[in-house]
Amino acid sequence: MQLDDLLARKGAWLAEGAEDGIVISSRIRLARNLDGIAFPDWAGEEECLRVQSQVLSALDRVGLLAPAMVMDMSSLSLADKDFLHERHLISMELARKGRGSGLVVREDEELGVMVNEEDHLRLQAMRPSFCLDELWGEIDALDSAIEKHLRYAFSETLGYITACPTNIGTGLRASVMLHVPGLRLANEVEPIIKGVGKLGLVVRGLLGEGTEASGNMFQLSNQTTLGESEAVIIERLTHVVREVVIHERNARLRLMEQRESRVRDFVCRAFGVLSHARLLGSNETLDLLSGLRLGVDLGIVAGLGTAEINRLTLYCQPGHLQKLMGRSIHAQERDEERARKVREAMRCAGLAG
Amino acid sequence: MQLDDLLARKGAWLAEGAEDGIVISSRIRLARNLDGIAFPDWAGEEECLRVQSQVLSALDRVGLLAPAMVMDMSSLSLADKDFLHERHLISMELARKGRGSGLVVREDEELGVMVNEEDHLRLQAMRPSFCLDELWGEIDALDSAIEKHLRYAFSETLGYITACPTNIGTGLRASVMLHVPGLRLANEVEPIIKGVGKLGLVVRGLLGEGTEASGNMFQLSNQTTLGESEAVIIERLTHVVREVVIHERNARLRLMEQRESRVRDFVCRAFGVLSHARLLGSNETLDLLSGLRLGVDLGIVAGLGTAEINRLTLYCQPGHLQKLMGRSIHAQERDEERARKVREAMRCAGLAG
Repeated sequence: MQLDDLLARKGAWLAEGAEDGIVISSRIRLARNLDGIAFPDWAGEEECLRVQSQVLSALDRVGLLAPAMVMDMSSLSLADKDFLHERHLISMELARKGRGSGLVVREDEELGVMVNEEDHLRLQAMRPSFCLDELWGEIDALDSAIEKHLRYAFSETLGYITACPTNIGTGLRASVMLHVPGLRLANEVEPIIKGVGKLGLVVRGLLGEGTEASGNMFQLSNQTTLGESEAVIIERLTHVVREVVIHERNARLRLMEQRESRVRDFVCRAFGVLSHARLLGSNETLDLLSGLRLGVDLGIVAGLGTAEINRLTLYCQPGHLQKLMGRSIHAQERDEERARKVREAMRCAGLAG
Repeated sequence: MQLDDLLARKGAWLAEGAEDGIVISSRIRLARNLDGIAFPDWAGEEECLRVQSQVLSALDRVGLLAPAMVMDMSSLSLADKDFLHERHLISMELARKGRGSGLVVREDEELGVMVNEEDHLRLQAMRPSFCLDELWGEIDALDSAIEKHLRYAFSETLGYITACPTNIGTGLRASVMLHVPGLRLANEVEPIIKGVGKLGLVVRGLLGEGTEASGNMFQLSNQTTLGESEAVIIERLTHVVREVVIHERNARLRLMEQRESRVRDFVCRAFGVLSHARLLGSNETLDLLSGLRLGVDLGIVAGLGTAEINRLTLYCQPGHLQKLMGRSIHAQERDEERARKVREAMRCAGLAG
């Protein structure tokens, strides 16, 4: 399977949409390093290549990623890297790297390893829906299997050693992507961001670290990795996600009771602009698709499902658009093409009631 | 005929729309005062009532306003005043006045006199299309006819004496309302405003003095009234309006050549939001109707004519909305009702091509 074959697929983090329309997807990653070898940013290319080769051979023997796609960063164009980043398969950090850094990912995109990102190994598992426990089971199995073939840098007192001190200990980051237009419309996002901060959690945007919460989506993840077991970290995150989901549900109910025309206006405007605009920017589209998604959840928009909105959310991002066009296109042409794709998809949609 | 009967009519300043879709309407007013009587703001109520009575009796004898509607400001509710102001029949200044100030207007709304506004008489003539010469003919005839029955305050050296020195001389203000979305999209409105200022002209918004240029409409009128004949003032304004119309036409052509998708996007978004929004504010609606109007001019929007857009422009203003509802309504209800009216009207509209 080639990278371009992914184009025909939905991407693991957005494939189906979760049951209740609020939790979009879950993700867990583990940071691991090989004992006695310099971290990737301090190692030379030769050393990185040796690490990569050891990791690939270990993964091959483990077999849990088969059938896998294997890529070295030096073989990818900028557009390819954007494309993989938008699918949440690689980080911006990895995208900036070249020879000796790479990605091994199972063809279903749900389980993979970034090699020589900030750490020698970044294991990651992701799946649509709210399923941290399952993901933990899978990634833990992969981690244990790899550990039989590679010697991890590990300290009895600290736990797993990582390039950045914020990851030391478990090396675990668990994240859940949420769609919270109700909280946004009710101006309750800020208090929640502050609240979760006090619980050792952190809020990030759609595409991870340093990105804005576009499209009323945010990722909730653990801040600390040290001094607690993986189970405790995941349990706390699970608990807080459930709370946020309840808040979002309540906000939607309250809005529909007290400010129904405000909610309908948000949804119907999004519907109107997506159906007719001739130029659509990337972030604006995410915001409008959020309105559409809420409309589907509330039964205001018909003829279009969450799966189609997920597809648009993914395929309207610059890297995906360029992949679909098969060439690099400038910003205005992208905005035209994005608007064309969205209009096409909107043809089967309608407003109910 | 009662004030409420106007509801079923289109209003003089927006009735048909002008031939080329750029000039919306023309208007001329003359400021006149009675000799030897204090200006309205200095006179007491009794004196204003005497002036009003003299003016009404003169107008009756003149007969040029028959059939006329005659109203004293004290008989009008705030909503009535908003309604008349939105139809350009009374100024904000007159709306603030009470007993002894009033309006006499021919039932076709094209010719009228405000009594005891800032001056004792403010004659005004207005009509859709670019027709300053015709309006001047009519208002001049009305002025001369009134002058046979009333003695105007007049100085051989200065001309007609007015309450505000900026109106002394001819007492004339001629205005043309223009719709210039092309200049706006091409960012050329500011240079034109500066340019016309140097020619002794001034730019105002949709509803006259102190209002913003909402909906890409502006009024161009003469700044000075002294030291030039009426013919010269009107000729210069006519000349400049023709220039602005040419600039607007060129801007539209250039935009359609060089940035067609930008123009189509402006039009189609307006179409999408007007067709689907559940809440529409007053100014936003004017801006969106401007997009729709441009779409009709350019053949992008079909099934809807300028006359219908003019009707919406007028009937979506707060005073008209409340008149239509038959009661005072708060802002959110107005926004809902406005959106409902607009959606209804948009049902017969479609995008061409």
